[in-house]
Amino acid sequence: MTKDVEVAEHHGGKDYHEPPPAPLFDADELTKWSFYRALIAEFVATLLFLYVTVLTVIGYKSTTDTALDADQCGGVGILGIAWAFGGMIFVLVYCTAGISGGHINPAVTFGLFLARKVSLIRAVMYMVAQCLGAICGVGLVKAFQSSYYNRYGGGANTLADGYNKGTGLGAEIIGTFVLVYTVFSATDPKRSARDSHVPVLAPLPIGFAVFMVHLATIPITGTGINPARSFGAAVIYNDEKAWDDQWIFWVGPFLGAAAAAFYHQFVLRAGAIKALGSFRSNA
Amino acid sequence: MTKDVEVAEHHGGKDYHEPPPAPLFDADELTKWSFYRALIAEFVATLLFLYVTVLTVIGYKSTTDTALDADQCGGVGILGIAWAFGGMIFVLVYCTAGISGGHINPAVTFGLFLARKVSLIRAVMYMVAQCLGAICGVGLVKAFQSSYYNRYGGGANTLADGYNKGTGLGAEIIGTFVLVYTVFSATDPKRSARDSHVPVLAPLPIGFAVFMVHLATIPITGTGINPARSFGAAVIYNDEKAWDDQWIFWVGPFLGAAAAAFYHQFVLRAGAIKALGSFRSNA
Amino acid sequence: MTKDVEVAEHHGGKDYHEPPPAPLFDADELTKWSFYRALIAEFVATLLFLYVTVLTVIGYKSTTDTALDADQCGGVGILGIAWAFGGMIFVLVYCTAGISGGHINPAVTFGLFLARKVSLIRAVMYMVAQCLGAICGVGLVKAFQSSYYNRYGGGANTLADGYNKGTGLGAEIIGTFVLVYTVFSATDPKRSARDSHVPVLAPLPIGFAVFMVHLATIPITGTGINPARSFGAAVIYNDEKAWDDQWIFWVGPFLGAAAAAFYHQFVLRAGAIKALGSFRSNA
Amino acid sequence: MTKDVEVAEHHGGKDYHEPPPAPLFDADELTKWSFYRALIAEFVATLLFLYVTVLTVIGYKSTTDTALDADQCGGVGILGIAWAFGGMIFVLVYCTAGISGGHINPAVTFGLFLARKVSLIRAVMYMVAQCLGAICGVGLVKAFQSSYYNRYGGGANTLADGYNKGTGLGAEIIGTFVLVYTVFSATDPKRSARDSHVPVLAPLPIGFAVFMVHLATIPITGTGINPARSFGAAVIYNDEKAWDDQWIFWVGPFLGAAAAAFYHQFVLRAGAIKALGSFRSNA
Repeated sequence: MTKDVEVAEHHGGKDYHEPPPAPLFDADELTKWSFYRALIAEFVATLLFLYVTVLTVIGYKSTTDTALDADQCGGVGILGIAWAFGGMIFVLVYCTAGISGGHINPAVTFGLFLARKVSLIRAVMYMVAQCLGAICGVGLVKAFQSSYYNRYGGGANTLADGYNKGTGLGAEIIGTFVLVYTVFSATDPKRSARDSHVPVLAPLPIGFAVFMVHLATIPITGTGINPARSFGAAVIYNDEKAWDDQWIFWVGPFLGAAAAAFYHQFVLRAGAIKALGSFRSNA
Repeated sequence: MTKDVEVAEHHGGKDYHEPPPAPLFDADELTKWSFYRALIAEFVATLLFLYVTVLTVIGYKSTTDTALDADQCGGVGILGIAWAFGGMIFVLVYCTAGISGGHINPAVTFGLFLARKVSLIRAVMYMVAQCLGAICGVGLVKAFQSSYYNRYGGGANTLADGYNKGTGLGAEIIGTFVLVYTVFSATDPKRSARDSHVPVLAPLPIGFAVFMVHLATIPITGTGINPARSFGAAVIYNDEKAWDDQWIFWVGPFLGAAAAAFYHQFVLRAGAIKALGSFRSNA
Repeated sequence: MTKDVEVAEHHGGKDYHEPPPAPLFDADELTKWSFYRALIAEFVATLLFLYVTVLTVIGYKSTTDTALDADQCGGVGILGIAWAFGGMIFVLVYCTAGISGGHINPAVTFGLFLARKVSLIRAVMYMVAQCLGAICGVGLVKAFQSSYYNRYGGGANTLADGYNKGTGLGAEIIGTFVLVYTVFSATDPKRSARDSHVPVLAPLPIGFAVFMVHLATIPITGTGINPARSFGAAVIYNDEKAWDDQWIFWVGPFLGAAAAAFYHQFVLRAGAIKALGSFRSNA
Repeated sequence: MTKDVEVAEHHGGKDYHEPPPAPLFDADELTKWSFYRALIAEFVATLLFLYVTVLTVIGYKSTTDTALDADQCGGVGILGIAWAFGGMIFVLVYCTAGISGGHINPAVTFGLFLARKVSLIRAVMYMVAQCLGAICGVGLVKAFQSSYYNRYGGGANTLADGYNKGTGLGAEIIGTFVLVYTVFSATDPKRSARDSHVPVLAPLPIGFAVFMVHLATIPITGTGINPARSFGAAVIYNDEKAWDDQWIFWVGPFLGAAAAAFYHQFVLRAGAIKALGSFRSNA
């Protein structure tokens, strides 16, 4: 505590460093290996994310299909599926945070772009890498599960029976808001300065946010909150219903991410410095 | 260890900073944007908490209703519901701790008020924000789940058949004691000074405390331990039984929070400084 | 890293402080309020531990009893019970570590006594406090669940049908070894010096160790690995079978704790300093 | 951030210490007690890993066998089994990281050998210790579960019906890639330097990686991703099918580990220093 304060004094009374906004276009980025390495990391991480999660979905359905004389309680359950999504995000954000920032989700990239944390060119290229990774990840599942992949819905996001499009869109907006709000909270430079180990810990609440949203919205939309995840499954499954509903899984997450970016940047951060420590000191 | 002691010596033998008690009335607070921002954060966090958790409850019931030919093992299970409550508290305390202290629960606010960590005006306004957020969160679930919300109990807390009011009240008191005791342990200034990253980690055990209490008391009361959660669901569900039992979910949590505040402040903290490190050195 | 080394150099080349062994009898302890506060903390923590976990067990059985027309998949499951035990240990060790060391288990106290981390008088008094707390915790469950407590086995540990006493004893020995080995690993002063936040994190792996052992041995003994837990349930349930098997739940955990203490102190710690960092530098 | 940079400047612009590659043969190691202690730690950890996990598998099957009039929802579920594998790796890596590096898996040892983190002699001896530990761990389960061990498949890894060998091999390769990639990310010296507490936290994402892979591939191969685990179960179960498929559980994990080592060392680390912090500053 005292040490942090001392460090801060060396730098003029501020205990955190606010990076300047990212430029919209940064041609310089394109000349760096680190940029391409980040794209590779996003591609690989999204591939692994979709591979593990969709394989879990298909495996669950194949081991609990009573039509196959299977034990209906014999799989990992919907709870296991929710863990697969949340847990993989925890692991992959942990692994790639130092390389690419660990987005693994076009909605997260979009939110960070709106907050000027990444340049436009980086945002677009990340989204492309994420979508390609998602397609490859689901493709692997189809290759491995040829007999089951199509039978069990291909891991695609669609609106469940009995819910209208507005509900599905709302569920995606709020779900993504929860995720992107957590991402902003976890990567706030103020927090990093005071508690320099938050970046290390951040992947855990981010993964839990994904886990929680899946618990709540799997019955409604199967839970997208990640356009690359929905797009990759739609491309490989290539089902009419999945394509018809696809817009929900892009518009919803992007609106939710925009709302979270607005909430964090304009409501929570405005004048944030004065409120620091207000809970403790109440001064 | 040795280093910490050394640092402490530099500052006069104390390795932590005990903030002065919060004043009962602090008119100055009302002039600060940070105060209103904290109210907004409490409102939004409680809204998201109720939205995700009650949506999980309704979704679980709708996907396992054998009357609808559903697979009785097909939902996230009671275990998934317990995770939803505990996990959301973990995520939301993590996100809002730096803005409002991350209460998200009138019982927590009440306990911290008794320990003079927050002023009376802040405590009252937080509770209002939490209750309004809870009503909006459950309202969203009703809007999204119109066909299922009323059929499956609306996420309201009521005493289960076969338990008397004394049992329900006792379960709420002890459950809230576990939660608020964990909150006090996690936010103790002594702990923060010695292990400066505890505030970062605190949300995890707090979330787990909520998870654990739900495992134990869902069969008895559905688990309140958060008056805003019980009140919000009662307002939207508006069922006679939910209103009849409502007092249990205010009296119980407030008594439990008061007991935890008393236990922490008068039993554990009295003379606490001499006991520091007694486990290690046994000197 | 470099900073730690620098600090170490200031203190003579050692980066950790090995406390002297605790005396067998330390009459001085008895004059300190911190000693009695630690006893209170152990009592309360063990009470809460048994209350939450046994309530989870009884609640699970009452909500899945097909004789009551209940949904057999409707409770938190054996997995939820295992979480209750592991999660409560995580939360309670986190809360009480700074007050009493967070034992909450006579086998842990015994292991730490063998390693000379606590005095004999402290060890004995802790065990008494833990057993009293366990009795009160289970007593609360019986008071709350009068109609179900006796019907569903009272949360008592007994050897399951089809297993002989040697298997039960072995399961308790190895299970407690896993737990106490984790406790020793987490509280090693070397580790604390190098990674000064381990004490903060230690409760999580300790809780997970308890969780894991429950997954493995619930089908055999119901999982004791904590004599206070087994004793408290036996006292309140007061069933002949529970008393007949009781010795298994004292002898097994004490042998397992002794084996873990021996393994840590004589195998892993001997010459431990030279091996520090061997994984990284391989020098 | 600024502080780290400052520290780095004091030491010549590098904020981490890259250890030299381990020699292929290091005869000197053989003269040190720390080497043999590391072997003991790997042996014990792998023994405990197999003991707890295989006991969980057998216990689950015995408590849910409808042929025995058991409750099909009465066990810990496939989800509980996945937790057992992932949770034990978390606990055991946490406990042994400071002694042996916490491999507990020949594939991890192989990956770290390829990256020149351990010498050849250490790698070979670790694998021998791991395999012996695994055999003893499964042997204990057979001794404890004599009536059930053989009936319920002995915890052995085999290819499930309906999947060809290529799929099984692919699942093992990618699953081990996820695990070893996480291990490399967690133990990167850069990361350690910047966030000095990562080694403390590393066991959690590593354990989660194991948990996630089990959720995904239990239906296909039962999930090996650890040749010692598959070998130990095959030796004790000694079933023809388990031996016929055994090569999959060595070739797959070793290929996956090699791919992860290549990806981390040649793709992510090449020029890694320039990319440090690119996410934050985008400079």
